[in-house]
Amino acid sequence: MQKTAIHPVRGFASDNNAGVHSEIIEAIARANTGHVPAYGYDPYTKSAIGKFEEHFGPDIAVFFTFNGTGANVLSLQSLTRSFHSVLCSDYAHIYTDECGAPEKFIGCKLIPLPHENGKITLDAVRHAYHGIGDEHHAQPRVISITQATEMGTVYQPEEISALARFAREHNMFLHVDGARIANAAVSLSQNLRQASRDLGVDILSFGGTKNGMLGGEAVVFFHPEQAENFLYLRKQSMQLASKMRFVAAQFEAMLASDLWRRSAEHANRMARLLEKELRRIPGVRIVWKVEANGVFAQIPHPAIDKIRQKYFFYTWIEEEAIVRWMCSFDTTEEDIQKFVAVVAEAVKSQSSGRAKSERRTL
Amino acid sequence: MQKTAIHPVRGFASDNNAGVHSEIIEAIARANTGHVPAYGYDPYTKSAIGKFEEHFGPDIAVFFTFNGTGANVLSLQSLTRSFHSVLCSDYAHIYTDECGAPEKFIGCKLIPLPHENGKITLDAVRHAYHGIGDEHHAQPRVISITQATEMGTVYQPEEISALARFAREHNMFLHVDGARIANAAVSLSQNLRQASRDLGVDILSFGGTKNGMLGGEAVVFFHPEQAENFLYLRKQSMQLASKMRFVAAQFEAMLASDLWRRSAEHANRMARLLEKELRRIPGVRIVWKVEANGVFAQIPHPAIDKIRQKYFFYTWIEEEAIVRWMCSFDTTEEDIQKFVAVVAEAVKSQSSGRAKSERRTL
Amino acid sequence: MQKTAIHPVRGFASDNNAGVHSEIIEAIARANTGHVPAYGYDPYTKSAIGKFEEHFGPDIAVFFTFNGTGANVLSLQSLTRSFHSVLCSDYAHIYTDECGAPEKFIGCKLIPLPHENGKITLDAVRHAYHGIGDEHHAQPRVISITQATEMGTVYQPEEISALARFAREHNMFLHVDGARIANAAVSLSQNLRQASRDLGVDILSFGGTKNGMLGGEAVVFFHPEQAENFLYLRKQSMQLASKMRFVAAQFEAMLASDLWRRSAEHANRMARLLEKELRRIPGVRIVWKVEANGVFAQIPHPAIDKIRQKYFFYTWIEEEAIVRWMCSFDTTEEDIQKFVAVVAEAVKSQSSGRAKSERRTL
Amino acid sequence: MQKTAIHPVRGFASDNNAGVHSEIIEAIARANTGHVPAYGYDPYTKSAIGKFEEHFGPDIAVFFTFNGTGANVLSLQSLTRSFHSVLCSDYAHIYTDECGAPEKFIGCKLIPLPHENGKITLDAVRHAYHGIGDEHHAQPRVISITQATEMGTVYQPEEISALARFAREHNMFLHVDGARIANAAVSLSQNLRQASRDLGVDILSFGGTKNGMLGGEAVVFFHPEQAENFLYLRKQSMQLASKMRFVAAQFEAMLASDLWRRSAEHANRMARLLEKELRRIPGVRIVWKVEANGVFAQIPHPAIDKIRQKYFFYTWIEEEAIVRWMCSFDTTEEDIQKFVAVVAEAVKSQSSGRAKSERRTL
Repeated sequence: MQKTAIHPVRGFASDNNAGVHSEIIEAIARANTGHVPAYGYDPYTKSAIGKFEEHFGPDIAVFFTFNGTGANVLSLQSLTRSFHSVLCSDYAHIYTDECGAPEKFIGCKLIPLPHENGKITLDAVRHAYHGIGDEHHAQPRVISITQATEMGTVYQPEEISALARFAREHNMFLHVDGARIANAAVSLSQNLRQASRDLGVDILSFGGTKNGMLGGEAVVFFHPEQAENFLYLRKQSMQLASKMRFVAAQFEAMLASDLWRRSAEHANRMARLLEKELRRIPGVRIVWKVEANGVFAQIPHPAIDKIRQKYFFYTWIEEEAIVRWMCSFDTTEEDIQKFVAVVAEAVKSQSSGRAKSERRTL
Repeated sequence: MQKTAIHPVRGFASDNNAGVHSEIIEAIARANTGHVPAYGYDPYTKSAIGKFEEHFGPDIAVFFTFNGTGANVLSLQSLTRSFHSVLCSDYAHIYTDECGAPEKFIGCKLIPLPHENGKITLDAVRHAYHGIGDEHHAQPRVISITQATEMGTVYQPEEISALARFAREHNMFLHVDGARIANAAVSLSQNLRQASRDLGVDILSFGGTKNGMLGGEAVVFFHPEQAENFLYLRKQSMQLASKMRFVAAQFEAMLASDLWRRSAEHANRMARLLEKELRRIPGVRIVWKVEANGVFAQIPHPAIDKIRQKYFFYTWIEEEAIVRWMCSFDTTEEDIQKFVAVVAEAVKSQSSGRAKSERRTL
Repeated sequence: MQKTAIHPVRGFASDNNAGVHSEIIEAIARANTGHVPAYGYDPYTKSAIGKFEEHFGPDIAVFFTFNGTGANVLSLQSLTRSFHSVLCSDYAHIYTDECGAPEKFIGCKLIPLPHENGKITLDAVRHAYHGIGDEHHAQPRVISITQATEMGTVYQPEEISALARFAREHNMFLHVDGARIANAAVSLSQNLRQASRDLGVDILSFGGTKNGMLGGEAVVFFHPEQAENFLYLRKQSMQLASKMRFVAAQFEAMLASDLWRRSAEHANRMARLLEKELRRIPGVRIVWKVEANGVFAQIPHPAIDKIRQKYFFYTWIEEEAIVRWMCSFDTTEEDIQKFVAVVAEAVKSQSSGRAKSERRTL
Repeated sequence: MQKTAIHPVRGFASDNNAGVHSEIIEAIARANTGHVPAYGYDPYTKSAIGKFEEHFGPDIAVFFTFNGTGANVLSLQSLTRSFHSVLCSDYAHIYTDECGAPEKFIGCKLIPLPHENGKITLDAVRHAYHGIGDEHHAQPRVISITQATEMGTVYQPEEISALARFAREHNMFLHVDGARIANAAVSLSQNLRQASRDLGVDILSFGGTKNGMLGGEAVVFFHPEQAENFLYLRKQSMQLASKMRFVAAQFEAMLASDLWRRSAEHANRMARLLEKELRRIPGVRIVWKVEANGVFAQIPHPAIDKIRQKYFFYTWIEEEAIVRWMCSFDTTEEDIQKFVAVVAEAVKSQSSGRAKSERRTL
């Protein structure tokens, strides 16, 4: 992946290229007073967990981690032994973007399933569910989905319910990588509980960083008995923060007010605006439904480099020239207008360029 | 380990029970502007690494991690394969306080050596160096020491040099867990380079969190070729921060001014003051030399509980009633006076209590 | 996988359901004299390794393991770190039939590629080779193929050469799971060196058990420097036999005479005979070319159960009713005639059965 | 460890330098008839397990592995998660001679305890049992002892019972590495059940190889529910033999007749004879009680080399010049007489040599 030092004030590379919401920074500063026990035995952590209980209901277990890799790996670790397998999309972040962290730490197999619009289907899961009881075969144990998906789409509630039901009926569990669960929930006009627990999800990696936090994710267990060994696993996995209060304070700020919702709604709205503007440009094809805060577009290959001279962003599928543009809590309409102008120019010059080149080859 | 919700404004449980130095908070806020690439490809990270080069000299490789567990495990991982062993003190943090993270992530053995005043000796290392070339025996590969030690003492420069020489001569490496390297360096009137690289250290886990940062540690390679795979290993070990600029900004603040030194000097001075005051109390025995920011005292067992009613702290060696009291960047002389008064009262009442009890049993 | 206690004198379930060739049993008995050093430091092991050198040429490194899982995992472990990935067929034994042993022991990802007739193509490898230098992405390091394949087909020499060339040009390595390398070599009229080293293979798992040994496989390194840590890795992976002479003696017997070739040729010939006889049965479709010692047939689903009442064997692809029938060194023409009669009867009754059933549903 | 090619017909290096008992070889040959299902689903395995039930009683679970490393690692794996620890002697085979296999495969810590005469004491265990419930500390889960010990001594029944009781009372388990359990049982005039199950042992690694088998160990669970995942773990750990019948047939031969007892009794008797003869040699000190089939002697350092010119054996503790001499099922009285003569000569010439050398230095 090519990285450049170019970074306009605000770009569209990723929602984690954005900084931190001002309310979060203020919350951190407020928590910076006196001494408190480390490692989560402080009143800030207790209070923040209380906020999760307000949103998700009682009888849950909540733990904070440093990042999404940690939240996902620990979620899966809590449900599996090394001879188990995890069924996920072949574009799942846990499958493609963790440098093998799940396999290394858990020791188990991740089985990639084909996706449709970023989502795995019940049929694909059913097909992959075999070899049960056969010691030669890693035993399917977890279905893991990403909500919102890596393609910017959103699972419908009934799609999640169906996967949860299959899991329950087959002695498996449903994990949701919710790095962007806030974006999905607002997209579906759900609250956080409706978007997860009420659908039969067993464990949720609740994302904070991409929604405007400085750093921190939460693992939310809807069946607290599955968290029995979590404290040990978190420590052993190097995900235990000593000054935990500063992670907790961020979540408190996210959940005590409706900051999680405001930020996600804004990012989603900006993505829809970006989509609308891009659709006006001939030569730009929007690939997947824009249901959360990301827009995936197919553009002429040479235009990619052209735009990159001004904005860094990721190519999602190289061979098909599909790129990803993300909006975040701080994206402005002006940012979008400027960016779209650059895209339009790059695609246009590319089109005429290609035309010329074609004529030349005649 | 007993944890309580009691936390006076400032206690002596640990330097990570303290908050964040105000200069660090300000640096974080200053870095919170616009978008920058994630994962360390931002100008803040580049600049902070430059500061490390100013302190440690050129031709080093520097990487940030979330916490000390991560820094230590990744340091060791960079030097070892699963069939290697790491020689360390039987009180080393990596041996006793990581819930087995090194064994789990690296797969190799940690061999505990007896310590003297918290330090391992060349003799102990020599004794443990055997079975070379024997496939049944994990192969010694790294000597890992903690500076300042878990007992609040400090390795003398020549002690480190001697261990480094042994390592070099036996195809091994010397790793320093420098969670409190700043406290050790100021104790020895060394700069950071003198305290590590110049003594033959191969890899340094450079601590930030315990010296007043919000969160962040650095792995400093003095032989950059040993860092060849670090980026992959860090990602896979779940230690890669997406919004890395906020870790980098903290280190920038620590190293650009002399904040690292000021904070460590202050903490050390407070520890010496605490020691001085404690020595006046009959019934309190200072166990190890106070060379950094920790004081280890042996006090009557029942006094421990008595003091804990007001201050949380850790018992270091249960059977011998040895406790640990740490000072930090924000400890004040007043904090010490208050605390010492509580200790004195607890020990005193205990002494008389014991006397009474003894009389009763006569 | 359903297992039954039914086992006719000789069946077609697997070449490892067969016993041990009499020459092997005799070799074991001959080696049973006096004391020799354990763990491979005995003259039998030295002599057997010499036999490998006669077959494969000098400058190789050879080690024995207990079984194929061990040989494959240790081969891959020798070439990889945990952040690497291994490209293999989605039907590769290492991917589907080791219960996740490679992931668990090595910690790395196995990337499944679509197969054509049991073989992976250069195109599929090229497609999977991406994300190089990206720390988020497990780094492709090994191409692993099975020869003969899990579908009973055989890679042509130029197919292997092309994969080896791609590997070499991309800083990768080519591993061959040769559980049935003997069957492939005789199928191609190659000697063992022509079938592996001469094609650019880096490491070969050389199968013994399925070709008539009691138990034992060999890892053959064609670049001995890659075996640098093998002794440690083998011991740590629990694959070091103490009474190694009895593994060595088996390989001596295989390679000193042409037993390896005689047994493989016989098994292959029996498979061709089985194929020929099966092709006469209407309702039996031979699915892949019979190039080694296995025949894969598609038969009516109910016939599978019917035949299983007399012979145990494995269904290869449940949904398509494809079954696997293997021949071994001890299969006789009479065995085949008896078996084919059972198949013919089952398929026939099934056809008429189905017809009846169809009529009934009219 | 120095290895030499010298191997007289029968030496004293190790009971695994011996070959295979003739009754075992015959049993293997007898099992070599026709086809049977692989991987343990054969009648030989069923029958052999039945023999274990005759010896140990009903309601056990028995599984075969390739070797002792496998049996021990899988035993421990069945009882632990990665955040657990195993308490064992600092001379335990699992601690010193597996090249870190337990740490690598299980991911957990092995905590070395000081031994007395090769045995760990209840006091040492009690001392190591701490940090319970503290997430920073690996949680003690298993006590693992070796019977007979690595020093040739034997735990008394009440010593094992006491450890088992402590384990039970502290939510831990007792594992016995019984590579030489037969030697211990006959030494104590116990049957196999009395030597393990009746004392409160949870899992026994039952050794076969060192007692005259070609290769094979068994894991015996006295609480079958602890074996719930064993089949998967065994496969994933590369310890599943395909032609399992040939391991099973060996155990059948060991247990159906009293071969296990005859062989162990013989080896023990030879060790006592060896001890008796050695005690007559001035300059040879017997270090630990000879209670099983090993004799540990302290002899002048130069004599070690001298004897090694004729017999290979292992130095047990280099610094103290303590060597290990093992007897096996096939040791003869004549072997002992010859060996003792060589020892006597080496020690004697050494004594006089040393005397001369001393005079020379005057």
